[in-house]
Amino acid sequence: MHPKHYCGVFGIYGHPNAAELTYYGLYALQHRGQESAGIVSSDGKQFRVHRGMGLVSQVFNGDILHGLVGSMAVGHTRYSTTGSSHINNAQPLTINCRIGPIAIAHNGNLTNAAQLRDELEERGQVFQTTVDSEIILHLMAQPSLNGHHGNNLLESIRRIEGAFSLVIMTENELIGVRDPHGFRPLCLGQLGDGWVLSSETCALDLIHAKFVRDIAPGEIVIINQDGVKSVQAFPEQQRRAFCIFEYVYFARPDSTIAGRNVYDVRKEMGRQLAREHPVDADIVVPVPDSGVYAALGYSEEARIPYEMAFIRNHYVGRSFLQPSQLIRDFNVRVKLNLIPELVKDKRVIIVDDSIVRGTTCKARVNTLKEAGAKEVHVRVSCPPHMNPCVYGIDFPDRNKLMAANYSVDEIRKYLNADSLAYLSQAGMVKATGLGKESFCMACYDGDYPVRYDPKADKHIMERRRARVEGFGEALAKDEMQIKLL
Amino acid sequence: MHPKHYCGVFGIYGHPNAAELTYYGLYALQHRGQESAGIVSSDGKQFRVHRGMGLVSQVFNGDILHGLVGSMAVGHTRYSTTGSSHINNAQPLTINCRIGPIAIAHNGNLTNAAQLRDELEERGQVFQTTVDSEIILHLMAQPSLNGHHGNNLLESIRRIEGAFSLVIMTENELIGVRDPHGFRPLCLGQLGDGWVLSSETCALDLIHAKFVRDIAPGEIVIINQDGVKSVQAFPEQQRRAFCIFEYVYFARPDSTIAGRNVYDVRKEMGRQLAREHPVDADIVVPVPDSGVYAALGYSEEARIPYEMAFIRNHYVGRSFLQPSQLIRDFNVRVKLNLIPELVKDKRVIIVDDSIVRGTTCKARVNTLKEAGAKEVHVRVSCPPHMNPCVYGIDFPDRNKLMAANYSVDEIRKYLNADSLAYLSQAGMVKATGLGKESFCMACYDGDYPVRYDPKADKHIMERRRARVEGFGEALAKDEMQIKLL
Amino acid sequence: MHPKHYCGVFGIYGHPNAAELTYYGLYALQHRGQESAGIVSSDGKQFRVHRGMGLVSQVFNGDILHGLVGSMAVGHTRYSTTGSSHINNAQPLTINCRIGPIAIAHNGNLTNAAQLRDELEERGQVFQTTVDSEIILHLMAQPSLNGHHGNNLLESIRRIEGAFSLVIMTENELIGVRDPHGFRPLCLGQLGDGWVLSSETCALDLIHAKFVRDIAPGEIVIINQDGVKSVQAFPEQQRRAFCIFEYVYFARPDSTIAGRNVYDVRKEMGRQLAREHPVDADIVVPVPDSGVYAALGYSEEARIPYEMAFIRNHYVGRSFLQPSQLIRDFNVRVKLNLIPELVKDKRVIIVDDSIVRGTTCKARVNTLKEAGAKEVHVRVSCPPHMNPCVYGIDFPDRNKLMAANYSVDEIRKYLNADSLAYLSQAGMVKATGLGKESFCMACYDGDYPVRYDPKADKHIMERRRARVEGFGEALAKDEMQIKLL
Amino acid sequence: MHPKHYCGVFGIYGHPNAAELTYYGLYALQHRGQESAGIVSSDGKQFRVHRGMGLVSQVFNGDILHGLVGSMAVGHTRYSTTGSSHINNAQPLTINCRIGPIAIAHNGNLTNAAQLRDELEERGQVFQTTVDSEIILHLMAQPSLNGHHGNNLLESIRRIEGAFSLVIMTENELIGVRDPHGFRPLCLGQLGDGWVLSSETCALDLIHAKFVRDIAPGEIVIINQDGVKSVQAFPEQQRRAFCIFEYVYFARPDSTIAGRNVYDVRKEMGRQLAREHPVDADIVVPVPDSGVYAALGYSEEARIPYEMAFIRNHYVGRSFLQPSQLIRDFNVRVKLNLIPELVKDKRVIIVDDSIVRGTTCKARVNTLKEAGAKEVHVRVSCPPHMNPCVYGIDFPDRNKLMAANYSVDEIRKYLNADSLAYLSQAGMVKATGLGKESFCMACYDGDYPVRYDPKADKHIMERRRARVEGFGEALAKDEMQIKLL
Repeated sequence: MHPKHYCGVFGIYGHPNAAELTYYGLYALQHRGQESAGIVSSDGKQFRVHRGMGLVSQVFNGDILHGLVGSMAVGHTRYSTTGSSHINNAQPLTINCRIGPIAIAHNGNLTNAAQLRDELEERGQVFQTTVDSEIILHLMAQPSLNGHHGNNLLESIRRIEGAFSLVIMTENELIGVRDPHGFRPLCLGQLGDGWVLSSETCALDLIHAKFVRDIAPGEIVIINQDGVKSVQAFPEQQRRAFCIFEYVYFARPDSTIAGRNVYDVRKEMGRQLAREHPVDADIVVPVPDSGVYAALGYSEEARIPYEMAFIRNHYVGRSFLQPSQLIRDFNVRVKLNLIPELVKDKRVIIVDDSIVRGTTCKARVNTLKEAGAKEVHVRVSCPPHMNPCVYGIDFPDRNKLMAANYSVDEIRKYLNADSLAYLSQAGMVKATGLGKESFCMACYDGDYPVRYDPKADKHIMERRRARVEGFGEALAKDEMQIKLL
Repeated sequence: MHPKHYCGVFGIYGHPNAAELTYYGLYALQHRGQESAGIVSSDGKQFRVHRGMGLVSQVFNGDILHGLVGSMAVGHTRYSTTGSSHINNAQPLTINCRIGPIAIAHNGNLTNAAQLRDELEERGQVFQTTVDSEIILHLMAQPSLNGHHGNNLLESIRRIEGAFSLVIMTENELIGVRDPHGFRPLCLGQLGDGWVLSSETCALDLIHAKFVRDIAPGEIVIINQDGVKSVQAFPEQQRRAFCIFEYVYFARPDSTIAGRNVYDVRKEMGRQLAREHPVDADIVVPVPDSGVYAALGYSEEARIPYEMAFIRNHYVGRSFLQPSQLIRDFNVRVKLNLIPELVKDKRVIIVDDSIVRGTTCKARVNTLKEAGAKEVHVRVSCPPHMNPCVYGIDFPDRNKLMAANYSVDEIRKYLNADSLAYLSQAGMVKATGLGKESFCMACYDGDYPVRYDPKADKHIMERRRARVEGFGEALAKDEMQIKLL
Repeated sequence: MHPKHYCGVFGIYGHPNAAELTYYGLYALQHRGQESAGIVSSDGKQFRVHRGMGLVSQVFNGDILHGLVGSMAVGHTRYSTTGSSHINNAQPLTINCRIGPIAIAHNGNLTNAAQLRDELEERGQVFQTTVDSEIILHLMAQPSLNGHHGNNLLESIRRIEGAFSLVIMTENELIGVRDPHGFRPLCLGQLGDGWVLSSETCALDLIHAKFVRDIAPGEIVIINQDGVKSVQAFPEQQRRAFCIFEYVYFARPDSTIAGRNVYDVRKEMGRQLAREHPVDADIVVPVPDSGVYAALGYSEEARIPYEMAFIRNHYVGRSFLQPSQLIRDFNVRVKLNLIPELVKDKRVIIVDDSIVRGTTCKARVNTLKEAGAKEVHVRVSCPPHMNPCVYGIDFPDRNKLMAANYSVDEIRKYLNADSLAYLSQAGMVKATGLGKESFCMACYDGDYPVRYDPKADKHIMERRRARVEGFGEALAKDEMQIKLL
Repeated sequence: MHPKHYCGVFGIYGHPNAAELTYYGLYALQHRGQESAGIVSSDGKQFRVHRGMGLVSQVFNGDILHGLVGSMAVGHTRYSTTGSSHINNAQPLTINCRIGPIAIAHNGNLTNAAQLRDELEERGQVFQTTVDSEIILHLMAQPSLNGHHGNNLLESIRRIEGAFSLVIMTENELIGVRDPHGFRPLCLGQLGDGWVLSSETCALDLIHAKFVRDIAPGEIVIINQDGVKSVQAFPEQQRRAFCIFEYVYFARPDSTIAGRNVYDVRKEMGRQLAREHPVDADIVVPVPDSGVYAALGYSEEARIPYEMAFIRNHYVGRSFLQPSQLIRDFNVRVKLNLIPELVKDKRVIIVDDSIVRGTTCKARVNTLKEAGAKEVHVRVSCPPHMNPCVYGIDFPDRNKLMAANYSVDEIRKYLNADSLAYLSQAGMVKATGLGKESFCMACYDGDYPVRYDPKADKHIMERRRARVEGFGEALAKDEMQIKLL
């Protein structure tokens, strides 16, 4: 079970087929969130919205896209931890306020959400969802201090902390925002006379848009009829903190981020892993699909044949059913089936990109041994995950992270593997071709670039609850004319 | 085509089956709105919400009701002019704010909505729906002037104008509010140790709740663990203005409002109509179902036999389809079919409760004549509708109201009827047994109890639009560090 | 709870809007079956079919009707005892066979179905549904004895026994068939150059078709490009046996059957009831909607005022939910609510058209007494139901028929009524204006016009089951080359 | 666009979770048909059926599986050329007949279907679907010549010609049948005390069943309480004709057929291709997923690095939408996106398993060239497809098969490739490790093992139509008593 992504964002300005192109863009970003999808279009006069639970292809059809008229659109794919009842939380969020209608698509996680929400509620703001992205809209809707209408975008962005790649749409502008650490990717493309914002470059490729550049950490990009303007919202230099796990697992292999192709990086991680942890064996077997590129790199570097002994069933989707407890252990096999002939009497290296809880990996090792593999060597193309993420990735709690609780040798024994080795932190960084200072690696090294205090949150929530005194009592204290019934 | 209702509201406090009872209550109030339905329950800790488009029986099922746990609930049935895409506007509305979660169910129409919304947006409030009821929640969420938490319910209610019967639920209270003119009905009932608020008494009957009393115009009723408290929010005496059309058409005949049973009132209107406009005829035929009670009264008073010559097809619902233009004229007959044998060679009096546009009535008269009726006399159990309603009823514009544009004799000729007569305004009031000063009869007499200025609304909307200047320009004026791309 | 109808049938020949007109026709026949609906159209070359579970308005939409091209169509509404899984049993049934495609719509019940099916299966016929109507298609598909193709319609119809009003469509003909006893209604209408077959005349009225005549018992009507031909399939005179309960309850009041308008007959039954069982009382109250016409007749004859004290909720549909056992007794009230003011201190006569199990009636009497009625007199506009129906009506078993197990006085006590009286059999027949020899009244008098032996059925089913020996054994006996695995 | 499969079949006997295991089995066979799925279970007394349009995971849920009680079940996944309206054609088919209920799941295509259907209809048989599998049921239902009940399974199977792997369920037996040429796969497995029949071994693996053996061509296997019996239905030796395209494309790589693992065969085809058609190049790129195994073999044999430069979007399903003509050319890219960095300035070999129409391949070559590939060499791991399949695979007509109409060099030019080469027929056979006499290779070599005459079919259909004379005329000739209306 891999950690889940939180979101993909996409926006387009100045194209007659804005909603359809956004549909394609979301398709390419589907891997970043499969729980809900939404598109908001604008013709400069009216916003049109469609959101739904499910995959992009399930949420939209031709009639719906046809109804989303206008030459601007913003789209969102979302992963959420809860079910169909949370359609209210599906994005893009849309509101009406002082400066007109606004739509927002957000990838990331605000670390000062509770404090901001507390402050805004005290001022009388009314919240309709439980997602932190709604806070940004409320900040933007506040009256500007300097009396101008509409100019507190910058002030709003400077108030929020944490991870945020945003695409915002107003009646006549498309705005891209990336937090000052650059936790999540966001890039700019050009399509004819129009402009595109996207979480990843693979969405630009799909619609034949030309990649222009990554949005810089801390940058705000405003696209309107005058073209593209850029504002550096956080001029003082801050530490960069791009999520290295995007290279390891999240981003699509055909995307390029910070100038490095993801496929290339993953294959190099495999090569580096082979250099760090060689082992004498007969075949290298990837765990599809997450381990294929690293396994290919390992195989090339180690000059050991590559065999795709695990076959993935492409029809296994979110809706897969576990009809009974009795036969639940079939489910590991539903997704991946082993070809026993390929591994019998062989010394096997299996390569995957992470071991989070260990249960699935243990099942794979077991299947290999049952099929007659002489030795099973597990190689992981990143370091052990020791810490949860507070910037938008749904890792399990620390007490469920295998590597946070056991030594490598204890894990090896649990997996029943003949050897187990992880890529080193330095090796992982080296494979990216970029410097360590570019990355957030908090899930590996515990060094969190932006402070986040869950206790503060809890305190705020408790205070808030205590405040609800009841109207009856309040009225009574005011000594209104009270009649007992 | 009758004018459409806007809403039915229902709430219950202190019963273990709160959501199920609300389901039944909404069932009894289904005639007040068939476009969407919703229930919000509370167990004192958490709100649970379910809303959907369609009839109460389509929106809810056993699993959903089972999930709406708690001993408090508020429900709403709604008529809206737009389609399925407006699920966002379905009620009860729910929000989170300074004083915790609030749910609101609203029947009526605010006449100062645009002004209030304008003012609130200027203050930075963020609106997610286009319904005026959301304004009330924003007012309640504002910080209290006197520093108390939670005590601006009263201030909020005093700010809004127009027609409103509200059921509001907070984490631990159920609140009923009726506007100072008492446009729409609202009553209080008791069920065991629990309390019930409902638009009409028929919902109390269904769940075996005891009717306690009508909520008074301008009264706020707060129900919590200490029992029921009552506040008169508008102590200064105001004119009463109960919508007399509730007696004529809207309310269910088995409801009792202001001490008068609706069936009784309608039958009395028929008797009064017979006294005012007698005619020598063989049979009295009601237009089902709206004209049945007045026709019964007319028949009794005139001592002319009552014949149900029009048969209603009970399976005709909202979803009835008009497959082609060619055969669209079947549709009048789909709903009501005449039994020709009953009217052949007879002098027929048909009784209905209103003629709004005249087309349907003309079709009925025509059908009777084709079937061989010798004479057709049309009797209407209320006065001619001359004016639109601004307090929550969806009448057509004045230029589509037949009586506002033509004389009675012109209408008679259009209908091809041998005679046509309406109940007088005085006769209508007399039939209620109450005084003229109790009622709003603006749709008949043009005397609007609360001022409403649609031009002011339009002005505000235009001003609001002009204000959207765009973030890019605003930023530019602030002379931020702008880089051209 | 009334007994359920089994079906409505409709067909049209020679109209460019055949499917749309059939849709309207089924709408008018919706009261005869609400569980499924279907239409099959033909353009002379191809059949097009759409069937679904639910009401006519739920099963069809504009696109579907648009796709049902052709100038011929046959339609069916059905009541079935089982749920959505039985879409396979929805009608019209369609098959392909020796003589091309055939569609059939059937109202009624074959009494020799088991024997015929047994015989056909022995011959090697393959059945895909469990409905008896499929048997007719198999008979028609058999090779003709005299060597003609396609001419065994007559032979087929002569083989089947029981109740059947059929509309059959072949590639170029529309055929109407009524069984020799004429149990169920079927009539012929004309619409421009086209022809219409319908269970009831109300469907002709709706589409402005001219009523031509009832199909005679035992008659086959064949409509094709040469016009309408009639064959008397059973020339020898047989006893007529029209279901008198069609007049009492099933047929729509605006239909005319055998020259008698159903509304008229029902009102006359009420008058006759008043003559047979007068009682001194203050008001006559109908049980809506089934009792309204008889109550009107009773009121007129007895000169006692008619009050509609029970109010029917028109929004209660098939999908009404009973969320919990606790509050199930609300359900009687969900459908009908009493206006207590109308009955308080009154002597009340309530009129209904039947008492099947007695539970609902008991609840009504109880409600009246709770509301303060001084006396409650129950009058039923037909005789007591003593026997089940084997010709297509879903009555309960005899042991659940109240009147079959208790005396009238015992039932009165059970109902807690002050008096109880039923219309006599002679009075019922008299009210129709036709002779006793015209009717099947088996549910009242036990005289079944066509023999039906449920034991024979059971025997056949057991024999059939015993026959399933298994292929393995059969093969073994043939001494094939058997290899043990 | 690959040719579509027609079906996967699965059955289980003697397991308490029969339906759930069938669900898993169908999951593993999902690649053989994605249009509809169905399961029929039996508890020895009653059949329970559920069928639906869509993927296995969409058609079933826990409640449905729970309702499919019994220790026997048969399942089917189907590809059909028509849409959702053809639920009637979904399998397994179920009928009732002389020998009780029968369910059938069929993979393949009968070549004498029209003749048999013609003959059966002449005998009076009634057909409800248009699928040839229904014919088998009708044959089985015919009375046995020798007077035994139930023993014409063998006679029935001997009547049908063409390709058929069948799983048949009666009330107490599960029967597997494979046609005498063995066109389609079918195998037997054991699970505890129960038995399993499946199209492919991958379904046995998933449910942990032990593979026993392939069902032999011409073999009937009967499983009942006495165990497993085998009958050789066609004792005379016939030519074997297993579809070689199962090895090339259809079967899952983790299945083993005729003792050869499919993955192994495909990789060997790649090696053989490298031997037959070597070319000097920098990288070998597979077209996912169909070309991956052959590409791996090619890469190993040629010692040229393997690069997965095309990235497949796993979220592209059947429901993918083509919103507008304008941007339809995005769709090739929706499924596969190229990583341009990997191919720039490289000489690229792309390996796929077939070129059917050529359009997709042309798009791939084009994409590679646009990305800067210096040379593009296309290698196909099977010979050119020259002929349609009449045994159950939906190939396009000959005039749309590229290789049937153009020379290899013409195709190369059309593709804009620098070279193009196909695996030879001999090389393909050699890679399987089996003899040429084992296979049907008609789509490659035009040698059809079983005769099929489409003209005969057409003739039969025309004769059938001419026969429909109309009932009216037939009756007239019989000189029945005709009354003009």
